[in-house]
Amino acid sequence: MIPTLTAFERSPDGGRGLARDMRIRWALEEVGQPYHVRLLSFEAMKQPEHLARHPFGQIPAYEEGGLTLFESGATVIHIAERHGGLLPADAQARTRAIMWMFAAVNTVEPSVFERVLVRILDRDAPWYEDRLRVLEDRIRDRLEHLARHLGNADWLDGGFSAGDLLMVTVLRWLGSATILDDYPTIAAYIARGEARPAFQRAFAAQLADFSKGAAPAP
Amino acid sequence: MIPTLTAFERSPDGGRGLARDMRIRWALEEVGQPYHVRLLSFEAMKQPEHLARHPFGQIPAYEEGGLTLFESGATVIHIAERHGGLLPADAQARTRAIMWMFAAVNTVEPSVFERVLVRILDRDAPWYEDRLRVLEDRIRDRLEHLARHLGNADWLDGGFSAGDLLMVTVLRWLGSATILDDYPTIAAYIARGEARPAFQRAFAAQLADFSKGAAPAP
Repeated sequence: MIPTLTAFERSPDGGRGLARDMRIRWALEEVGQPYHVRLLSFEAMKQPEHLARHPFGQIPAYEEGGLTLFESGATVIHIAERHGGLLPADAQARTRAIMWMFAAVNTVEPSVFERVLVRILDRDAPWYEDRLRVLEDRIRDRLEHLARHLGNADWLDGGFSAGDLLMVTVLRWLGSATILDDYPTIAAYIARGEARPAFQRAFAAQLADFSKGAAPAP
Repeated sequence: MIPTLTAFERSPDGGRGLARDMRIRWALEEVGQPYHVRLLSFEAMKQPEHLARHPFGQIPAYEEGGLTLFESGATVIHIAERHGGLLPADAQARTRAIMWMFAAVNTVEPSVFERVLVRILDRDAPWYEDRLRVLEDRIRDRLEHLARHLGNADWLDGGFSAGDLLMVTVLRWLGSATILDDYPTIAAYIARGEARPAFQRAFAAQLADFSKGAAPAP
């Protein structure tokens, strides 16, 4: 059964693979599961047909037979439970990998994503620079702790897992921020994730979809 | 084996059960699992001994035999997998309950918790009111979608699950905000969670711990 992933028709990231469907594409590529894609406009995302898939009117949504999911983290857990390779077999190591998934979306993502929003929405506000500084201090606190934990290891806890997959997608939102210059082991960790063949295939697929959505109507 | 939960010696919430250890206490009470508590000062939370439990130097941490966890969401999944009552037995319903756990911490929590931070940290900033308005608009967008999904149901998806447990703890951060006046079904949903005997026991336990931490040294 081929699952269907719903993604932006025209992602605001300009094809840089920063939208959350990238997490699911990458997970599916890691386990070798093909998928269909449904691309939606922002207007279509607010319609009842899509709200039945995603109650908050966002992307990604994931459909597989009678199961309809939203939330990229939960979808990655679901994929990991169906296929090998994303969660360790050992019970404690598996629980810790899920712990790192939550750490990515609940401890690191909030300040990192808030910075993305502020840079898009509040650039003209008189408090823009102030706000950015506050957020960057919070991000640095997280990165310092993360770098301390990572040390010289390749991945967060043993081999590559769904925890690394989510953490790398969150950290990629820092993009070309000079903050990462101060955390070379984290920059190398992100690069290690991006170098995985499954990441590369997922990235190429979202870029091809973006180019389709961005093409002028014939 | 009795697990040990690490929590604030003196929670900044003043004993209102808003710190994230409440999620784990509530889950443990729902499944009838007793636990020990270790209370830490803010200073102790930054020491290597605690960083070994929680790489970001925060609370809660959870120890059970050789397993050490941080992240309340992952800890609740772990407790749910060990005991009945927090995740449905049906595979698809179980996956959807995990989906609502992620929705709580990754879709609803960011703007709700950012509002908590702004109200504590930025009250004297010239842009305080502006910032609060932006956040409250984002919160309203989430609440409208959540209320639309909930309808007249008691819980998010069938019976009470770990998804409701996390969602209620997130929504409780809205506290006495007048926002909730506009969403009576959500206010009733929060009240339904708080009325559960397991919630009540967890709340009483955190309050007793807070009172201990807040008592002047003898």
